[in-house]
Amino acid sequence: MATAVRWDPPYLLYLGNAPDDLAAKTARGIAHWRPQHCIGQLSGSACQTTIGLPEMDIASAAAAGARTLIVGVANAGGIMDAETVATVIAALEAGLDVASGLHAHLADHPLIAATAARLGRSLFDARVAPATPVGNGRKRAGRRLLAVGSDCSVGKMYTTLAMEKAMQARGLKADFRATGQTGIFIAGGGMPIDAVIADFISGGIEYLSPAREDGGWDLIEGQGSLFHPSFAGVSLGLLHGAQPDALVLCHEPTRTHMRGLPHYPQPDLEACLQANLAAAQLTNPQARFVGIALNTAALDEAGAQAACAALESRFGLPCQDPVRMGCERIIDRLLAEFGH
Amino acid sequence: MATAVRWDPPYLLYLGNAPDDLAAKTARGIAHWRPQHCIGQLSGSACQTTIGLPEMDIASAAAAGARTLIVGVANAGGIMDAETVATVIAALEAGLDVASGLHAHLADHPLIAATAARLGRSLFDARVAPATPVGNGRKRAGRRLLAVGSDCSVGKMYTTLAMEKAMQARGLKADFRATGQTGIFIAGGGMPIDAVIADFISGGIEYLSPAREDGGWDLIEGQGSLFHPSFAGVSLGLLHGAQPDALVLCHEPTRTHMRGLPHYPQPDLEACLQANLAAAQLTNPQARFVGIALNTAALDEAGAQAACAALESRFGLPCQDPVRMGCERIIDRLLAEFGH
Repeated sequence: MATAVRWDPPYLLYLGNAPDDLAAKTARGIAHWRPQHCIGQLSGSACQTTIGLPEMDIASAAAAGARTLIVGVANAGGIMDAETVATVIAALEAGLDVASGLHAHLADHPLIAATAARLGRSLFDARVAPATPVGNGRKRAGRRLLAVGSDCSVGKMYTTLAMEKAMQARGLKADFRATGQTGIFIAGGGMPIDAVIADFISGGIEYLSPAREDGGWDLIEGQGSLFHPSFAGVSLGLLHGAQPDALVLCHEPTRTHMRGLPHYPQPDLEACLQANLAAAQLTNPQARFVGIALNTAALDEAGAQAACAALESRFGLPCQDPVRMGCERIIDRLLAEFGH
Repeated sequence: MATAVRWDPPYLLYLGNAPDDLAAKTARGIAHWRPQHCIGQLSGSACQTTIGLPEMDIASAAAAGARTLIVGVANAGGIMDAETVATVIAALEAGLDVASGLHAHLADHPLIAATAARLGRSLFDARVAPATPVGNGRKRAGRRLLAVGSDCSVGKMYTTLAMEKAMQARGLKADFRATGQTGIFIAGGGMPIDAVIADFISGGIEYLSPAREDGGWDLIEGQGSLFHPSFAGVSLGLLHGAQPDALVLCHEPTRTHMRGLPHYPQPDLEACLQANLAAAQLTNPQARFVGIALNTAALDEAGAQAACAALESRFGLPCQDPVRMGCERIIDRLLAEFGH
């Protein structure tokens, strides 16, 4: 399976026929965190969302300098429909490379692969994991923070990206380490940890975040939740491989059940903190929590402030919504605990 | 990737150039649990072990009725060396199908695949996982027991196979569910859970052990350990997917460190019981331990009895070495807890 190792900006972000906002979350994440790399969006014929960029067809985007079409839409099963395939082919014909985060790989589609080969274009599938050794749990140099979650899709990527931005603004060395397709597009690389072979989960994270000697922090994007019956294995292997010094718990306070599983309630946050800490301490006995990142998008301003204050008082940890309030107090705690 | 869905006995078990006993553990497991299906062993030129079967070359085995050559040797990286490839080709030429549990797949080797196609023989790679949905954690009918471990390679497969045999001897419905390559060869099918894509670990086990309405037990082979930094993600996803009613803890009391990781001590058994129980209760709040299976191969008879008695007294659970002592008292506890 031939894949390019890089995909060049600027990007045209393809939204396909996303039926709702969440289906375009990859495109939206890229546009939010790397606006300087995004020159437009291309909606499919039945697209039901927008990410707020200028709508451009492929010819206009190519004329404006776009280098890569990114398929920024997700769907059940991660398949490529006929319209997506036609759009990818048209982009290749127009001179663009193409990147995708779908489970169905560009490089596995005969016509796409043949077209790219004929034209000398690059294809990049973010959900293809490089081969790595199995994890060994050996203590390695460097400082690592991991965002863990009470559930899937509660803001782990946004939290670690917000911390990277804020820490770099303070002149600190800090680097986001991506573990999902959206983060990989934003960071320019990473480890699609949900796509590795099960025996290599912790090894994949050891590979993603190796020993580091410059005193800086790796800020590792978590995935899933130890309390999500579908994906907890990924979360645990990630936690062990990350060997985190510092943990941030990410939580969405208005959820009534685990994402996608109406028959599972949300975990108690105290149990969630304890379970993550116990698991983390297997590979780093010094691991500790430095904050709670609350996703308050569903609350008004007063509600958001009250929710953060309540958790802060309950657990003695700084609690902020990184999108709404920044994450300065979580960083203050991190530096107070671990030094500059 | 073409694979046969079945491989027929009798088997010729290929030991390759196994440098020690452990390297031939797949062949040894098959010979131990399915002696009626094994007509001989074939050692490589530098093989350092035996499994005690008659040594046969391929022609003799074919003449004696062998239907399938099973590559029953493991090596670092799971590769196929030139001698293994030549042996596989010779077996195909002699009229045998070929099955393998190596990470390197028969069907991916061009010469092996071409030879099998030309001759109409079947290839079976035990370490190819079927595609399944992601896990949903929904309560399903049936009774399930899972063997969990303090470490890798402590006897989880032997324990569940011994329980299957003993329960069937009592006239109970009980079926071993294999999650590793050796178990798959013994059972005639299963789910190679260390080879699934990470997002599908719990889903793979839900698929392996679906709802069951006949009152019988599924006895699910565990893998790894929640306390093994390399593989705990697999163990946790397996635990959640199994939704076990009953758990048996498997332990090897003479280990001084985690398998393959001299820098990691063995877990405290109390912590091990508690962590497995807490994790199991996410998908089955009624889960409970019914026994401890102690691998006492490294102890003499008096030492084995004393070690079991000590754990039995400490934890109030029946403790037996299923190979040395049988597992009747663990089954008694299972039936006392859950009825017949």
